[in-house]
Amino acid sequence: MSTATGVTRTAAKLADGRDIIYFDDVTVGRTPPVDTRPLGDRVEAGGMRLDLLTGEWVAVASHRQNRTFMPPANECPLCPTGRGTVPSEIPDADYDVAVFENRFPSFSTAAALLGPAPEDERFSVAPAKGRCEVVCFTSDHDGQFADLTPVRARTVIEAWVDRTRELAQLEGVEYVFCFENRGPEIGVTLHHPHGQIYAYPFIPARSATILAQARAHRARTGRLLGADILAAELAAGDRIVQRGEHWTVYAPFAGRWPVEVHVVPNRDVPDLIALTEEERAELAVLYPDLLRRLDRFYVAEDGGSVRLPYIAGWHQAPIREGRDDWRLHLQIVSVLRAPSRLKYLAGSESGVGAWISDVAPEQVAARLREVGA
Amino acid sequence: MSTATGVTRTAAKLADGRDIIYFDDVTVGRTPPVDTRPLGDRVEAGGMRLDLLTGEWVAVASHRQNRTFMPPANECPLCPTGRGTVPSEIPDADYDVAVFENRFPSFSTAAALLGPAPEDERFSVAPAKGRCEVVCFTSDHDGQFADLTPVRARTVIEAWVDRTRELAQLEGVEYVFCFENRGPEIGVTLHHPHGQIYAYPFIPARSATILAQARAHRARTGRLLGADILAAELAAGDRIVQRGEHWTVYAPFAGRWPVEVHVVPNRDVPDLIALTEEERAELAVLYPDLLRRLDRFYVAEDGGSVRLPYIAGWHQAPIREGRDDWRLHLQIVSVLRAPSRLKYLAGSESGVGAWISDVAPEQVAARLREVGA
Repeated sequence: MSTATGVTRTAAKLADGRDIIYFDDVTVGRTPPVDTRPLGDRVEAGGMRLDLLTGEWVAVASHRQNRTFMPPANECPLCPTGRGTVPSEIPDADYDVAVFENRFPSFSTAAALLGPAPEDERFSVAPAKGRCEVVCFTSDHDGQFADLTPVRARTVIEAWVDRTRELAQLEGVEYVFCFENRGPEIGVTLHHPHGQIYAYPFIPARSATILAQARAHRARTGRLLGADILAAELAAGDRIVQRGEHWTVYAPFAGRWPVEVHVVPNRDVPDLIALTEEERAELAVLYPDLLRRLDRFYVAEDGGSVRLPYIAGWHQAPIREGRDDWRLHLQIVSVLRAPSRLKYLAGSESGVGAWISDVAPEQVAARLREVGA
Repeated sequence: MSTATGVTRTAAKLADGRDIIYFDDVTVGRTPPVDTRPLGDRVEAGGMRLDLLTGEWVAVASHRQNRTFMPPANECPLCPTGRGTVPSEIPDADYDVAVFENRFPSFSTAAALLGPAPEDERFSVAPAKGRCEVVCFTSDHDGQFADLTPVRARTVIEAWVDRTRELAQLEGVEYVFCFENRGPEIGVTLHHPHGQIYAYPFIPARSATILAQARAHRARTGRLLGADILAAELAAGDRIVQRGEHWTVYAPFAGRWPVEVHVVPNRDVPDLIALTEEERAELAVLYPDLLRRLDRFYVAEDGGSVRLPYIAGWHQAPIREGRDDWRLHLQIVSVLRAPSRLKYLAGSESGVGAWISDVAPEQVAARLREVGA
């Protein structure tokens, strides 16, 4: 299947039945080889439990304790097969962008409770139905999203859109979250440049909070919360990092992480699917540029660069409700509060959820403007 | 002032006007010496900003970037003055338990905005009024809460009660949180055994969530949420760690951290102030015992012990509302998911607030029973 943008989509199966989908912008005429690894039965997610104290679901994924942890580079499971000494998760000898189901998923369509459900009705359990996918941004083990060409970044965007659309149609899925964890400082176990997509069978807690705020804002003002925030940031001006024809980047007024920037479309858009060709094209240039700026944010004591650890996540509208009140935004945050100091989420943040920020967002924005190309 | 339990309370001032309060169980006839350090003006908290996207207040404390960071042991600011090479925060030559106002507070009674408030009504700011205190558990630099005698642990409890009662009377304070961060793995910058107390001018996000849940539970069932949770845990039994005459310890059904235990009174109690003499006395024995078990939870690869990093926080009822729906609980959590592996709060937890737990709470409880004295 080929899309309007010249991205070719090829679906195949891994040895244990998991899906793999190639999104190609350079490679043509792909015929995916058969995955011959002796993987055995696929690993399914287990259950989730309702925390009565907070009303939030917690997935219990004890099998993940044994997941792949910092393999040597010649055993990288995300490199094309043939580059390393062992077959990888990608059977083909090369790929442009590849997406496959996580081998150790926290959520999967055939998730099943590991034991009988508690008889006490005060304890609620449910199978952790949903899906966890891995998105390989490039076959270059030493690459990074910041260095992707606009063509390749655009292909990743098409992959996100494709996956959001498809995962939203799975039974019971309520929320799709595309994100990238980058850097050992936040526990990344595989260095190959990749992101993840989680399809949850519930609206996650923070997303539910944002939705409730947006609805309350609509009820109070008649306006769309996300649009009001963008208008207010533009009017203030001093936290704006970049202003494109289709996108705006700013350090939010009440940012809580040492580095926090939001990337929002200039038009009211609920999710990635709704983005126009032009919006996707500009994002493919603007986003890698922003990531390069982030790597120039700090300067090491020896004058060298500091690879900024970050979490970048696309906050899309929930699937079945609230689309009219939601506005798409990408949130990028970093735990690094100085070249060699981390912010920890200790008592105040982890215990009661009260955040103390060490940095004024205006300073973050000024620095990111200063280090622009 | 002497209390019924034999704890003597002595209040004094530090050089910059901050309060220091000694709680003595052994020392008698204290006359606090004058703090002669040239501290200059006291440092006040700045402002806080309302995050429109979530409705949560974020304190902006940029002056804290320069706070004391891992001083050498002979400059410990929490040791009695005279033990180290420089005068400490505690002017006296010894103390049993000492509480003083944090020199670099995130919240303080005279907090003031650093600049003019934004004219745009969409941006809300307020002075970060409240208070941040440090609680020194012992004058022994190398001690820890787990090793406190019941008498000394009881004195700490009396200090928490005293501070909760007094801080609740400060204008604008809505929530008092007594907690301990322990271990460099969660960013603790001072090794001397100590905890903290934050008095917030708002009900923090997680506390507000618990309160809303408790009210909804009351409306639905007519029962107290915390009492129902304890009853359900007792009925299930397999997550109970300790059952005392006045207290119960359990690994909660939907615990989200690699190690999570809750300590709750057997009686419906909203906060620390409401605890009886007998409840305080049992807690002074049971809590250090639990902390010693936590340090036996993991065994290092060389067979040695693993000092468990933890966050321990007392979830008390808010000050001005919800007391009838709230039940006191102490939550102890650890980020350590194996002797040398941390759980990181990455995309799913930090981005959308969906927690994935790697451990079954039943296993946590079984291990903590097994390593009991």
